[in-house]
Amino acid sequence: MKKSLGARTLAWPNPVYLVGTYDHENKPNIMNAAWGGICSSEPPCLGVSVRPARHTYDAIMRRRAFTVSVPSVDLVKQADFFGIASGANLNKFEAAGLTPAPGELVAAPYVKECPLVLELELVHAIRLGSHIQFIGEIKDVKIDPNCLDEHGNPDIGLAAPILFDPALRNYHSVGPVLGKAYSLGKDLLPK
Amino acid sequence: MKKSLGARTLAWPNPVYLVGTYDHENKPNIMNAAWGGICSSEPPCLGVSVRPARHTYDAIMRRRAFTVSVPSVDLVKQADFFGIASGANLNKFEAAGLTPAPGELVAAPYVKECPLVLELELVHAIRLGSHIQFIGEIKDVKIDPNCLDEHGNPDIGLAAPILFDPALRNYHSVGPVLGKAYSLGKDLLPK
Repeated sequence: MKKSLGARTLAWPNPVYLVGTYDHENKPNIMNAAWGGICSSEPPCLGVSVRPARHTYDAIMRRRAFTVSVPSVDLVKQADFFGIASGANLNKFEAAGLTPAPGELVAAPYVKECPLVLELELVHAIRLGSHIQFIGEIKDVKIDPNCLDEHGNPDIGLAAPILFDPALRNYHSVGPVLGKAYSLGKDLLPK
Repeated sequence: MKKSLGARTLAWPNPVYLVGTYDHENKPNIMNAAWGGICSSEPPCLGVSVRPARHTYDAIMRRRAFTVSVPSVDLVKQADFFGIASGANLNKFEAAGLTPAPGELVAAPYVKECPLVLELELVHAIRLGSHIQFIGEIKDVKIDPNCLDEHGNPDIGLAAPILFDPALRNYHSVGPVLGKAYSLGKDLLPK
């Protein structure tokens, strides 16, 4: 018998996305978002939800562009800082000692030190209550070459992204491989 | 210097959501979805994206309800099967040897064997290209009591959810704790 926890936001795992924007003064800003994910394949789109009070909200509405930088485990302290501090009264990049690199395709900066970064153009802003979901079309994905495997494929083990657990409010690394997708389940197909 | 991978759907980590519905014949159906995430806190909402060709698509459009069951690592084979087979010509629950439990608050079944399940009422269906993003308001979250820690909090280590890596197409477990959110980054706040 399952125990009811009520209506709450619990559906493991959650990502740690660092959302990069230029604010109204053209200052690079960055926030930590755990409410988001890929939401379409063609065109490739990603959604990330932001409260209207956040400095990032106005920036995305103005520029209609943002980036998502995926931090590695060695940047967990900086990633957490980006979720605590506000860019309204602080240059968060400077305070964290990280480098804003200008997007090549959109008017938004990404975190140079993150192994994986996405450039996105806003296509929808959906009002959901406490949060606005910004859906961006992914215009490019960039990766540090040392996070590619020997076949040139992006290697999650080398990029070492972070997960967020909203229940116990911890960050986690990614664990070992359990098996191959589109393969493990074939045994269960009717013969 | 980062390497461009072009416009593609890569933003680690991705969840493994098992989306439960009743189809037009009232048959319980289930699919595996990696494109999704929490998208609002109040009301609590989750988005999951589905291609219109999927059996689940019609079911959600008809019933305006679905569930999300979060499988544990010991169900990775069944979870993968749910992503390979179609419910159009198969009872996927039966084939996988798993049990459809009726939602208490919405007209959709969940996977009894999964440690964490959500019941959702459809609030938005957003056409994005290849996929429709279904945004559901979370009406209840249920957990197996053996996945609660000694303080009664949902414990990700006990529930052992699965991650999906779309780049190398592998499933992963969740790794160890890296540190406390809303705490690790405090050192970087200006004094």
